[in-house]
Amino acid sequence: METLRELSLSQIKVTGGMLADYQKLMVEEMVPYQMEIAKTGGELDTLRRAAGYWTEERTGPEQMSDFGKLLEAAGYSLLLREDEGLRRDVEEIVSLLRQAQLADGYLHPRMVSKRPADRFLSLLMSHEMYALGHFIEGLLACAEAGVPGAQACAEKIGDCLYERFGRGPGQICGYDGHPEVELALYRLYRATGKQEYLDVMKFFVDERGQCGEGHPHYYDWEQERNTRKFGKPVLGDLARWADRHRPYWGRYEYFQAHAPARQLTEPVGHAVRATYFYCGMADLAAETDDAELAAACRRLWENFQRGNVFLNGSIGQEGFWEGIGRAYDLPNDITYNETCAAIGLFLFAHRMLRMDPKGCYGDQMENSFYNTVLAGTGLDGRHYFYCNPLEVWPDSLYRYDKMHILSRRYEWDSVPCCPPNVARLLGEIAQFTVLAREDGLWVNLYGSVRGTAQLACGEIPFEMETRYPWEGRVRFCVQGAGRFALRFRIPAWCRKWSLRVNGETVDAPTEDGFACVERDWQPGDCAALELEIVPRRVYADPRAYHLANQVAVMRGPLLYCAEEVDNGPLLSGITLPEDAPLTERAEPDLLGGVVTVSAPARKLAQDGGPLYRGEPPRREDITLKLIPYYAWANRAEGEMRSTFYRG
Amino acid sequence: METLRELSLSQIKVTGGMLADYQKLMVEEMVPYQMEIAKTGGELDTLRRAAGYWTEERTGPEQMSDFGKLLEAAGYSLLLREDEGLRRDVEEIVSLLRQAQLADGYLHPRMVSKRPADRFLSLLMSHEMYALGHFIEGLLACAEAGVPGAQACAEKIGDCLYERFGRGPGQICGYDGHPEVELALYRLYRATGKQEYLDVMKFFVDERGQCGEGHPHYYDWEQERNTRKFGKPVLGDLARWADRHRPYWGRYEYFQAHAPARQLTEPVGHAVRATYFYCGMADLAAETDDAELAAACRRLWENFQRGNVFLNGSIGQEGFWEGIGRAYDLPNDITYNETCAAIGLFLFAHRMLRMDPKGCYGDQMENSFYNTVLAGTGLDGRHYFYCNPLEVWPDSLYRYDKMHILSRRYEWDSVPCCPPNVARLLGEIAQFTVLAREDGLWVNLYGSVRGTAQLACGEIPFEMETRYPWEGRVRFCVQGAGRFALRFRIPAWCRKWSLRVNGETVDAPTEDGFACVERDWQPGDCAALELEIVPRRVYADPRAYHLANQVAVMRGPLLYCAEEVDNGPLLSGITLPEDAPLTERAEPDLLGGVVTVSAPARKLAQDGGPLYRGEPPRREDITLKLIPYYAWANRAEGEMRSTFYRG
Repeated sequence: METLRELSLSQIKVTGGMLADYQKLMVEEMVPYQMEIAKTGGELDTLRRAAGYWTEERTGPEQMSDFGKLLEAAGYSLLLREDEGLRRDVEEIVSLLRQAQLADGYLHPRMVSKRPADRFLSLLMSHEMYALGHFIEGLLACAEAGVPGAQACAEKIGDCLYERFGRGPGQICGYDGHPEVELALYRLYRATGKQEYLDVMKFFVDERGQCGEGHPHYYDWEQERNTRKFGKPVLGDLARWADRHRPYWGRYEYFQAHAPARQLTEPVGHAVRATYFYCGMADLAAETDDAELAAACRRLWENFQRGNVFLNGSIGQEGFWEGIGRAYDLPNDITYNETCAAIGLFLFAHRMLRMDPKGCYGDQMENSFYNTVLAGTGLDGRHYFYCNPLEVWPDSLYRYDKMHILSRRYEWDSVPCCPPNVARLLGEIAQFTVLAREDGLWVNLYGSVRGTAQLACGEIPFEMETRYPWEGRVRFCVQGAGRFALRFRIPAWCRKWSLRVNGETVDAPTEDGFACVERDWQPGDCAALELEIVPRRVYADPRAYHLANQVAVMRGPLLYCAEEVDNGPLLSGITLPEDAPLTERAEPDLLGGVVTVSAPARKLAQDGGPLYRGEPPRREDITLKLIPYYAWANRAEGEMRSTFYRG
Repeated sequence: METLRELSLSQIKVTGGMLADYQKLMVEEMVPYQMEIAKTGGELDTLRRAAGYWTEERTGPEQMSDFGKLLEAAGYSLLLREDEGLRRDVEEIVSLLRQAQLADGYLHPRMVSKRPADRFLSLLMSHEMYALGHFIEGLLACAEAGVPGAQACAEKIGDCLYERFGRGPGQICGYDGHPEVELALYRLYRATGKQEYLDVMKFFVDERGQCGEGHPHYYDWEQERNTRKFGKPVLGDLARWADRHRPYWGRYEYFQAHAPARQLTEPVGHAVRATYFYCGMADLAAETDDAELAAACRRLWENFQRGNVFLNGSIGQEGFWEGIGRAYDLPNDITYNETCAAIGLFLFAHRMLRMDPKGCYGDQMENSFYNTVLAGTGLDGRHYFYCNPLEVWPDSLYRYDKMHILSRRYEWDSVPCCPPNVARLLGEIAQFTVLAREDGLWVNLYGSVRGTAQLACGEIPFEMETRYPWEGRVRFCVQGAGRFALRFRIPAWCRKWSLRVNGETVDAPTEDGFACVERDWQPGDCAALELEIVPRRVYADPRAYHLANQVAVMRGPLLYCAEEVDNGPLLSGITLPEDAPLTERAEPDLLGGVVTVSAPARKLAQDGGPLYRGEPPRREDITLKLIPYYAWANRAEGEMRSTFYRG
């Protein structure tokens, strides 16, 4: 199957606008800040120890995966802007990784230093391959940035996995409790062309969740073996985890191991594990033209869309297992909505887009990106949200805390998975904007970028300029010559758009959410897309029972919300009349420069009356002021609300 | 201070109506069912073992307190209707209790049998005096029912506590982690007139929460002593409990030991512990004319009323510590609202009424009684709710479960505290209806009763007849002669009422929520009170942010709710227009005979559309059918909702 392919980060660069602002924040604040924490917080010490330089050890097993993501972000940072100090750090890290790597390629710093004999002993909860996968991705990013030895180190990890895992004699017929290595191995395969990485990745996808007569479930077998050998399951007690999500899920769902990949239907269990695994599934389905696997991916996608995605593109309601809840159960307040889970959904959508070039995937990518990924980071690049509720009541902190929902921007956390995940996504965001196929270009996300694509007709340099998401005007100029189709995603939310080429309106038929102009392009030809971006109301399916009789306001891809600092307290008393005009206003000095939306609305007036009464509380006229949701919690602490009662 | 006093259960009896129906259920179903469970579930075995007859032990320490409540209910049951088999059981229980009682009066069956040396060692969590208090209450009820030896056994418990607790040499200067014994000792004092029971009760009230230089907090001292002596705190780890309600409360709040009684302001911590302790405080304040303590009681009451009582008279939002949450934080769905906590509030209101004869206390008593106590029991008397949410979403069970909220009527539970609590309250309900003071009668709760009160003017037999709460007509006839004031509570919800005596309208001034007729009453004089009982809308203070823009329907004291079985699914899509007429209808064959309320309303129509859309979902006209909330969950399982969006 010919799939869309992204351009490499040397082929496409962000040149301006909001994406450039965030990449600047990533290069100047996020990566340096996080690297500093890695230096003092234990990750580098762990690495030095594994490399033979003794120091105290201070990291949990899964934490090293976050370090892998940071390494990836650092690689992108070097691609975006050379920095001597950062390059020195990265080179040292890669050098330490290579020293720590065992002869067979194994490289989990914590396992190497602490329990070399224990490797691959507790796949259920060791997070070994989860970390190894992120190391592969990080090393490949560093290789792209020219760090010596990085690619070789990544390949040795891949070789180790290929040797150790499979159905052959002496191999381990198991898979990691936290999927991720599948997509990393696929990336390694794409970077090297070596079939064995695809083979072992395919083994992981195929074997997961298999069991039957004469073939015990791997995790049961592992728990039994360990208990027999060591008197305990070693890492992770399956029964305890099953209990944690009882009565909602069964024994294996949290780990995405309840059924073979091709039989999956409903998204379940731990949200990040789920979406990362679906990425691997989609990668494999597209690469091997596996119709059955592709059908499973499409089912999972549709069931996500049916009732499990929040207005802000978040997924994963449940704090108790960081996981996916029931369809249509979308509480704005007591929801988990981990930043990483939205990134997982973004990455899954990207794989679906590569396989099935449809606009709906890009719609989800921009929704998750603008409204959760960006919201997960403070405007200073140094404060983060693990969870992304759409509504914060007064004093709600204490309840969130008990539901395992972290509800404040934090400076750092004991499981710092989200910050480097946001940083690496910002670093590679250019490659999600314009994708290519032999026959043309697909403009998926709008932003100012400059790139070059190799099409059947030849090499086509191009440049896109836009103030998106603030404005809907997109100028796309071609600097090469050849006949190809140029396709623009027309977002589902966009009610009015037009397309001109060299000033002339063209008739661009839309198919699967993309408007297409096929022609003989000449250097200097420019397409001008105009997407109408105005504030609009959004309503939910009545089955989304928490959102019944409520209305949200969006503008382009951005969700809007009200904060107490602008609107006073008790935001739940607001009704937004159906006919109230929504007025937009550019405010360059607010929150780094945003477009706000205001509307005449009504709010219950505090009257100091008794708790219950026979007369309805008086409503007073207010001007409701809304800011983009991604920018919330950057001023005073207080209430926030992103839906309002219909007036 | 001259306080109101209740009539003893031999002086006042329920004669008909809804209260009689529930007493019949209590006598015929609840007590026999619960007694059967006590026989097979371990309580009686524990007792036999403590009495020297060896059997296997099967109960937790707090469970024996529930057995004490059952004993109390059984005593009332015998007072209501003689039953040979039940009397035999009760006599056996009292006889076993007396055999188990140690020479000094100590009588915790589990402690006696299992760890006689450990008594009073871990006041923090042993629940010893909590159980002893309930035994005192149970034994006094049995004594009233003529069970031999019951009162003596209760007095010996009181003697034991008086000897062991206090500030004297060799005494324990501590108090139970679960208050209750205070009000039980006060009851014992009232039954016997013996000053020492009042003294030790006063000691418990005064000492609680005391600490300072040279006077460590008792629980800290106890934990330290036990850890030093036994290497662990023995029962209950204070740090663990403090952690459980972090960051909301401090170290001692759960146990109601964070400040001396007279300094308390806000209701906090475990809801049952709180209200039971406030009962003791109010008893002591009234008995000893302690103005400082009375002021503390009034503060706690007012702060409860300000923002912590649910529409159904429930309290205690938090499942994680079965406790009280922040004022105005009244979520209909994820609330704990333990049945026992509403009973605690009822009992506290009763004490406040005795001290300050005001209608607001009776208003709360009837609200908690009709809308939580009754709701806590299925119409068959054999199914119970531990928690009383006001709203149940589809599939909400899994989330409730994780928040420690039990959301189904259960047949029995490992902590069966609520069922016997409901049973005993039903058994003694008559004494909360009409209270007396030297100068008159106070009709506090409406129901058909017959009684006799000793007033200054002489003995006054009386009879009240009413179909309350279904109808507001109350006929109160006096069978004695004398000048006294007859007062009727005019509920705050009642907008229209009239009072006639012997057919003539009288001018009855209301004071503190009571309408008063003072006159020379003659035998056969009848007062006819007519309270308008029609369906009405109820709104919440806008500060109650979960209830903003919503409306509830009540009729008389009864809260109404919609069930899925009557209204189809997705109840959250309902709006109730402000001008929709509320039509009532008596349905004698429904749910044991109820008045239902219906109204034209609108509901979002399921259209199978996408999860999010630019057009609001269509609303369709429906007839909203409401049943009394207390009767919910007696038919098909499904959604329930007791507030609706204002249309």
